[in-house]
Amino acid sequence: MTDKIQIAHGGGGRLSSQLIDDQIVSRFGDGPLKGLPDAASLPGINGRIIYSTDSYVVQPIEFPGGNIGNLAIHGTVNDISVAGGKPLWISLSLIIEEGFEMSTFRKVLDTIKSSAEECGVKVVTGDTKVVAKGQCDKIFINTSGIGEAFSEFTLNKTNIKPGDKIIVNGTVGDHGMAVLTAREGINIINGPESDTASVHRLVESAREFGGHVKFMRDPTRGGVATVLNEIVENNNFGIKLKETELPVSPGTHSISEILGIDPLALACEGRMLLVCSPEVSEKILQKWKKFPEGKKAKVIGTATEDRGMVLLEAVTGGTRLVDVPLGELLPRIC
Amino acid sequence: MTDKIQIAHGGGGRLSSQLIDDQIVSRFGDGPLKGLPDAASLPGINGRIIYSTDSYVVQPIEFPGGNIGNLAIHGTVNDISVAGGKPLWISLSLIIEEGFEMSTFRKVLDTIKSSAEECGVKVVTGDTKVVAKGQCDKIFINTSGIGEAFSEFTLNKTNIKPGDKIIVNGTVGDHGMAVLTAREGINIINGPESDTASVHRLVESAREFGGHVKFMRDPTRGGVATVLNEIVENNNFGIKLKETELPVSPGTHSISEILGIDPLALACEGRMLLVCSPEVSEKILQKWKKFPEGKKAKVIGTATEDRGMVLLEAVTGGTRLVDVPLGELLPRIC
Repeated sequence: MTDKIQIAHGGGGRLSSQLIDDQIVSRFGDGPLKGLPDAASLPGINGRIIYSTDSYVVQPIEFPGGNIGNLAIHGTVNDISVAGGKPLWISLSLIIEEGFEMSTFRKVLDTIKSSAEECGVKVVTGDTKVVAKGQCDKIFINTSGIGEAFSEFTLNKTNIKPGDKIIVNGTVGDHGMAVLTAREGINIINGPESDTASVHRLVESAREFGGHVKFMRDPTRGGVATVLNEIVENNNFGIKLKETELPVSPGTHSISEILGIDPLALACEGRMLLVCSPEVSEKILQKWKKFPEGKKAKVIGTATEDRGMVLLEAVTGGTRLVDVPLGELLPRIC
Repeated sequence: MTDKIQIAHGGGGRLSSQLIDDQIVSRFGDGPLKGLPDAASLPGINGRIIYSTDSYVVQPIEFPGGNIGNLAIHGTVNDISVAGGKPLWISLSLIIEEGFEMSTFRKVLDTIKSSAEECGVKVVTGDTKVVAKGQCDKIFINTSGIGEAFSEFTLNKTNIKPGDKIIVNGTVGDHGMAVLTAREGINIINGPESDTASVHRLVESAREFGGHVKFMRDPTRGGVATVLNEIVENNNFGIKLKETELPVSPGTHSISEILGIDPLALACEGRMLLVCSPEVSEKILQKWKKFPEGKKAKVIGTATEDRGMVLLEAVTGGTRLVDVPLGELLPRIC
């Protein structure tokens, strides 16, 4: 047993098999992973299949509120969920830097295991590569995921009409801010903690509102600002937000003020935006508030006639345009 | 239009969208990729689902016979194929180093597109991350893939009996050797070329032999030696190979001799091993020889009573044990 990852751990020989048996199969191998080493054999799906992938390169790999392991599960589970699906199976592919601490590796895998269990998904197939020191940064994780579409949803942003409501399930920008503070070594009492979490229960609880739910999305890279602009792009409506209604945690708020960063442009990893007809917005809020991940859910805005524009009614009274950030606010936040 | 990848290309803002529209959606976007940016919605699958993933970190990313783009498609398509499935859909996730040449990026994407078309699979969902210079090595690619299981196969290595035949569809070790020569700058006339290719047509053509086909696998990392040892492990039989029957290309043979490398331990990326009952081996060979990727197919060995052992009858007459390489023969070959 070595305490660091070696190049030979990725070489396909005996050390590779040992690493996979000891660390991967021991954690995830009670499922289909056990049978076929390079592919999983799974039962068929009657409804439509939802399929998604993401690579996670967050730096640092540990931050207040989580690590790269939570992100790798929550991110892909959330992509499937907000597409209107029930996440079922996950693939897990690791690129590890030679010299990576085995103890940290085990911690990340433990997080993946516990997050997957919370989300009700199974890691069913995987891959492990090792590259020489300096050829990647500690560990990069790819997950892809398969889900089954809920038949109740008919998501289509072109169905949105002025008057429809925009709901978010909690404070915005905490993940981006938590990674920023971890990276820069900013230590603040009651500082921001990542919101990394799964939204799959929120999506399931909105199923009964079927066609009234017109759009769902998790605001990750580019934040709420980017998603809202994508919604209005080439569409016949705009969106107006109220700054007074925008949930921002005290930690994220104070650092945003100091650094001049807009929390709307910061990534979330446990939030979802949902656009629905006004008659169901309060009902959805009631349902969501029963879950820890929906406790602070709020209507933050309304669809308007201002075609193509996302506007924010500021605390001070004025109105400003919420634009898409041009480039990288903060690289490697997920 | 910039000629190098910038950090902002991965930031989730305008430059990200532009890169994805110009380079990804333009090539793959006629399918489900177009509709839902973070997840694909696909028709259901009645039979069992075959699901696989691999990350590709080959260095150098271009080598005689292919580049990282071919590998990323062939590798995952082959994993699904040898598990007895028809590959259908591919996810494509890119981690790109800041400063990576846009022209090389386009070349790799073109290769992915053409390889996917040849294999009859569709890239349906994806992700693009950019990391700072020095935080990865040019480009890492993850593909995962979904296929539908062919009902004819009942693959199980415990069904193998002494007398069963081991078939390979062509020369062994060429991919590993091609990458080695490219990396070390060894230039030889008629040197080794990677065998990277899809075996999906070979698998389809073996369907009619159903239960006579007991095992299929692509010998990638660890080569033929590793796969054969996996087959005999904890089983009631052994395997005997004949060196005189082993197809090795002249280029790979000569460099193997000079460097003292066993081609059996080198990776292939377009080869498959198939174990079948003796009554169908010639019929499978006949079918395979009709395809370019099966033209040099051969029976290379036979299952024996020598429980747990893989033996090679050498050209010189003696017999040696074929063992699993302990560690990394050649890192980053796929």
